[in-house]
Amino acid sequence: MTELHLPPKPGLAAGPGEFVFSVAGLAHGHIYGMTRGLLEAGATLGSVWDEDSQKVTEFLKAFPQGRAADSLEQLLEDPQVRLVASAAVPSRRCELGLRVMEAGKDYFVDKAPMTTLAQLEQAREAVRRTNRKYMVYYSERLHSEAATLADLLVRRGEIGRVIHMDGFGPHRLGGGRPDWFYQKKYVGGILCDIGSHQLEQFLYFTGSEQADITMARKANYAHPEHPEFEDFGDCAVTAPSGATGYFRVDWFTPDGLSNWGDGRTFILGTEGYIELRKYVDIASGRPGENAVYWVNQKGEFRFDATGQVGCPFFYRLIRDCLDRTETAMTQAHAFHAAELCLRVQAMADGL
Amino acid sequence: MTELHLPPKPGLAAGPGEFVFSVAGLAHGHIYGMTRGLLEAGATLGSVWDEDSQKVTEFLKAFPQGRAADSLEQLLEDPQVRLVASAAVPSRRCELGLRVMEAGKDYFVDKAPMTTLAQLEQAREAVRRTNRKYMVYYSERLHSEAATLADLLVRRGEIGRVIHMDGFGPHRLGGGRPDWFYQKKYVGGILCDIGSHQLEQFLYFTGSEQADITMARKANYAHPEHPEFEDFGDCAVTAPSGATGYFRVDWFTPDGLSNWGDGRTFILGTEGYIELRKYVDIASGRPGENAVYWVNQKGEFRFDATGQVGCPFFYRLIRDCLDRTETAMTQAHAFHAAELCLRVQAMADGL
Repeated sequence: MTELHLPPKPGLAAGPGEFVFSVAGLAHGHIYGMTRGLLEAGATLGSVWDEDSQKVTEFLKAFPQGRAADSLEQLLEDPQVRLVASAAVPSRRCELGLRVMEAGKDYFVDKAPMTTLAQLEQAREAVRRTNRKYMVYYSERLHSEAATLADLLVRRGEIGRVIHMDGFGPHRLGGGRPDWFYQKKYVGGILCDIGSHQLEQFLYFTGSEQADITMARKANYAHPEHPEFEDFGDCAVTAPSGATGYFRVDWFTPDGLSNWGDGRTFILGTEGYIELRKYVDIASGRPGENAVYWVNQKGEFRFDATGQVGCPFFYRLIRDCLDRTETAMTQAHAFHAAELCLRVQAMADGL
Repeated sequence: MTELHLPPKPGLAAGPGEFVFSVAGLAHGHIYGMTRGLLEAGATLGSVWDEDSQKVTEFLKAFPQGRAADSLEQLLEDPQVRLVASAAVPSRRCELGLRVMEAGKDYFVDKAPMTTLAQLEQAREAVRRTNRKYMVYYSERLHSEAATLADLLVRRGEIGRVIHMDGFGPHRLGGGRPDWFYQKKYVGGILCDIGSHQLEQFLYFTGSEQADITMARKANYAHPEHPEFEDFGDCAVTAPSGATGYFRVDWFTPDGLSNWGDGRTFILGTEGYIELRKYVDIASGRPGENAVYWVNQKGEFRFDATGQVGCPFFYRLIRDCLDRTETAMTQAHAFHAAELCLRVQAMADGL
């Protein structure tokens, strides 16, 4: 086994009350992960708002340190609040972000951060004007210790130069999804939605600002009761460096899987490759997430990253907001990834 | 664990001397696997020929029951011989096949079975005229117990309707490859060569006669000393049923891998999916080949197929030659797969 010499896990980026964030928009469950990540890195939860007060009540059961805001206006006017986190319905995320930034606060939004190119242009313009941040929760990289370790391995040259990447992003559909989930005007499409994790990772791990779209496909293979729903999508991209990528996403996780999806990332380098089994290592007899495998000139390795490397994104995001730096994710990268997703979806849509 | 109720492994298709085959063309090591498969299914080895007599001597050390032919002509004229197996240089395989079929014998050739569409047309015409077989050793399905089990699982409906397939075909380059291996005119290109395994599997597992090519790419990422060599290729195809496929192949297997390549096949169905780790189950603590994983509505499963299901292709091929049937592989399928490979390579070549 290669001695890993792991860096220390990130500590607290702020003391109590030093970095207060509020939450507005609870449509997607990702808001729980976003909130947990911020709290664990030292942020302080302020007020919480959603148009559905029942959702607010549920959320405050999980995070009793927060309080319900009387209105979105009240939340946005609170001078203590530095950042607003949101998992509103995707098509409404940009509009909310513009209001957040106009109110002088940074914005941290679930992916997809918007659903149209027109929204993206509005967001870019507002960032330039307000000098606020429009950061995106690309959780499959930013909130994954497996991805944190992969990043470390790539940076250390364990697999040489990255030449190709594959991503599989299967998700469990389950029952009880809200109506908006099945409507294209609210979600944007499967490639723009869950495909965004994959495209963001490709740009990140290949060190690319953008990529050419080689092909994009979508399908509704088995859900005719939801005619606008896309239950499968895939895409190939090529980076300016020549590095190639492919990913597929779907809503076909079977009931027998012990987690919500068998997400995989394969990073191929000139001297080896890495495989992340992010959420489940199927039928391995090894329960748990964040199984990192890699093979290089020295051998075959496996490392269980859970609890070992943390997710430095949240620490860095808080520091970036306080220090006005860009260590967690550059604004350019967040928007480049968003733009790529929208263009990939448009190609699959035949637009 | 689902009770598998495996069928009995194939027995002997012929008694001693009942089905005699000869071997002509030892350029690629696959000829050893082809010969072993035929012998294990009951075939009898006759004479062996290659233009390099040293190769014949080596081959006969592994298979001492054979004998060296004085010439290719002598081998082809032997009335006892029913089938000629060959792993000649790819660009010469068709020419040899035509001579074999003209001599009234069936032909069993390593993939790629030819390197140009003109050769394919010649082969098709010769099959029609001679009524002989031009069968292809797509070893990554036909000579893999993992693939045999996957076939069984798909046919039994364990994963519902097949909607997508991914194949990874990394190979170790190693040293000591002959000059022809690096020259495009002899090999045809990476997609036509090792990509052929992947395309054949896509057609087979989706039950397709042919497929539309959505995209095809190739690269020489890290071997500038061999300018015609392609060390990476990938491709997306769509079947008439709407099923989608993607594969990538490369020559980047790192030295530390415990086998020649971490070949994977992922078959996605509406009710579950199968993953084959065909040659190595990396860092699993479980040595050996043919690890078959599947997940469906009932659970997550793993089965080590080595020694459990056999490779019925060889039994069936011998019976087909004796009985003039098509149970191992139809001639149409063998040629459809070959044509698809040549078209994919041509697209990547920009032709």
